[in-house]
Amino acid sequence: MTSTEDVASAGAGAPRRRATLAAVAAEAGVSLPTVSKVVNGRPDVAPETRARVERLLGELDYRRPGVHGARRGRRSGLIDLIFNGLDSPWAVEILRGVEDWSAVHATGVAVSAVRHGSARPASWTSALASHDTEGVILVTSELTAPQLEQLRGEGIPLVVVDPVILPDADLPSVGTTNWAGGLAATDHLASLGHQRIAAIAGPPDYLCSRARLDGYRSALDRARVPFRPEYVRHGDFQHEGGFAGGRELLGLPEPPTAIFAGNDQQALGVYEAARQLGLRVPQDLSIVGFDDLPVARWVSPPLTTVRQPLAEMGRTAAAMLGDLIEGKPLRTRRVELSTELILRESTSSPVR
Amino acid sequence: MTSTEDVASAGAGAPRRRATLAAVAAEAGVSLPTVSKVVNGRPDVAPETRARVERLLGELDYRRPGVHGARRGRRSGLIDLIFNGLDSPWAVEILRGVEDWSAVHATGVAVSAVRHGSARPASWTSALASHDTEGVILVTSELTAPQLEQLRGEGIPLVVVDPVILPDADLPSVGTTNWAGGLAATDHLASLGHQRIAAIAGPPDYLCSRARLDGYRSALDRARVPFRPEYVRHGDFQHEGGFAGGRELLGLPEPPTAIFAGNDQQALGVYEAARQLGLRVPQDLSIVGFDDLPVARWVSPPLTTVRQPLAEMGRTAAAMLGDLIEGKPLRTRRVELSTELILRESTSSPVR
Repeated sequence: MTSTEDVASAGAGAPRRRATLAAVAAEAGVSLPTVSKVVNGRPDVAPETRARVERLLGELDYRRPGVHGARRGRRSGLIDLIFNGLDSPWAVEILRGVEDWSAVHATGVAVSAVRHGSARPASWTSALASHDTEGVILVTSELTAPQLEQLRGEGIPLVVVDPVILPDADLPSVGTTNWAGGLAATDHLASLGHQRIAAIAGPPDYLCSRARLDGYRSALDRARVPFRPEYVRHGDFQHEGGFAGGRELLGLPEPPTAIFAGNDQQALGVYEAARQLGLRVPQDLSIVGFDDLPVARWVSPPLTTVRQPLAEMGRTAAAMLGDLIEGKPLRTRRVELSTELILRESTSSPVR
Repeated sequence: MTSTEDVASAGAGAPRRRATLAAVAAEAGVSLPTVSKVVNGRPDVAPETRARVERLLGELDYRRPGVHGARRGRRSGLIDLIFNGLDSPWAVEILRGVEDWSAVHATGVAVSAVRHGSARPASWTSALASHDTEGVILVTSELTAPQLEQLRGEGIPLVVVDPVILPDADLPSVGTTNWAGGLAATDHLASLGHQRIAAIAGPPDYLCSRARLDGYRSALDRARVPFRPEYVRHGDFQHEGGFAGGRELLGLPEPPTAIFAGNDQQALGVYEAARQLGLRVPQDLSIVGFDDLPVARWVSPPLTTVRQPLAEMGRTAAAMLGDLIEGKPLRTRRVELSTELILRESTSSPVR
């Protein structure tokens, strides 16, 4: 990281947030969103406007309340990593990547979870208010528009990992090639000779879920395997959804011989549905997951799955955030890291 | 948390750490360790000595470098949670508990991992140096004496979760009733009628591993099941160790009908060893784990295991640390939360 200009007068009693940003906007003769863009290092601001706003931010000693920020105030040496919940086993994979980057860059990582159903609008980011932060990485969060506005209004640099809802095109984000992963999983099953290939997708309003399912459909199409609507179920990306979907599919008059389970947790639910019906994996049923969580190696049989590079996604998000904090324009605002099919023992040719 | 006295002159250029603590010690006419005890809220200091040292700490405006601390300097609103590594699936369970406590107490949680083999002695805590911290929770870390001294020398309040090596008796720590858990797991297998009960313990130098194995031996003893040395293996608490131990045990001339696998990851390794030998769980082999990671519910069949309340351990450690930060003496320096046997489908009576 580059060195920063220290502002000596970094006291505790910062002015009201909106007032200060608004004052800069008024003084610069630009709109509040434009000031916000400059603070967030977004490229779509004319150079002379950016220079004027930055100078004024400096002159007015702009400091975010609770945020010692960016290229101005004292560096807090801290970024925030906010999860939708800490109950997903892949949270720790993302965290590992962010922590890796941060250790090299002498930055701390404050981890918190969004509290849903909070009465007060600000409380979902109450963790942010408790300490100084230089920027935020949000993971698979269903950000509401007011929440997004709150972060932007405070001028906090923000990167989103694997956004559930179509991100604001301006919002820097890191994802994975979900469509290509769904395609590879289904290609693999078709190439083994399966003709009856079902899919358990995630929730239909999740983008990643839609992309994986579209990849499944394209692979069927390429392999000239007819698409059967009764072979598609939607789960919740949890074990329970995989189990329920698996039971329904395996109870069909003409059950599938292979299931693309949408993610690893759903795949394990299908394992259990198969076990309860006395079906062996892969002899009687082939199963492919998605994620490649550590558990994919630990289950019996080890799970064939589509690897999404979670730690690498965390590292990439941290690096993008680091650029934003230093005020560098991003080369691209959306990065998709590639998936990879990992062959293990849960798939084989169908028994005829 | 109670309100704190803010010290206005909290600047960046703090004096050298040892010098300041030493100055307080000299001025108070006590030893440096005594000053450290007071800073750490340890009870074994005479009241008048404590009062004198605290007054001097206040007068001399003692501030920890890199640490805005305790009842003096500005509150950073941040504690550090340091893992031995972020590759254990139960790291996130501990984190969840710490984060829960912190959200309620408006405190941020900075998460990092110890880097082993670091050339510079200080680099394992480089994350700490990057930001202000009020206290540290260390999880299953094999702390070396110099590392411990470093933390203590800086006067950073410290709580250890599940210490691998016998902790310094003075060090506040949180664990679980490992011995009782090993006893309950083995009692359960004996009560099902198993006579050939094996155990795969963790590394022999881990305290928790020893305690679980001793519980196993006591349960055998109580059930009048003879202890057979060839039925005890040591793993690495990973899937691999469980797999290797399981293969060895199941390859014995008289193989066990039940295995207490030491932890959940090793239990899954035994699942795989059984599967490769064509053995069914639980019909041919009963298996009990330890931890109750989320995956214990997801595997097929769902794993009977000894629950250790990881999130609750994290919450407890955070609460103890909160007391230390506020300068309250701890009621007890060692807390063991109780384990609970969770019955699922990986155990049944042996087929005769």
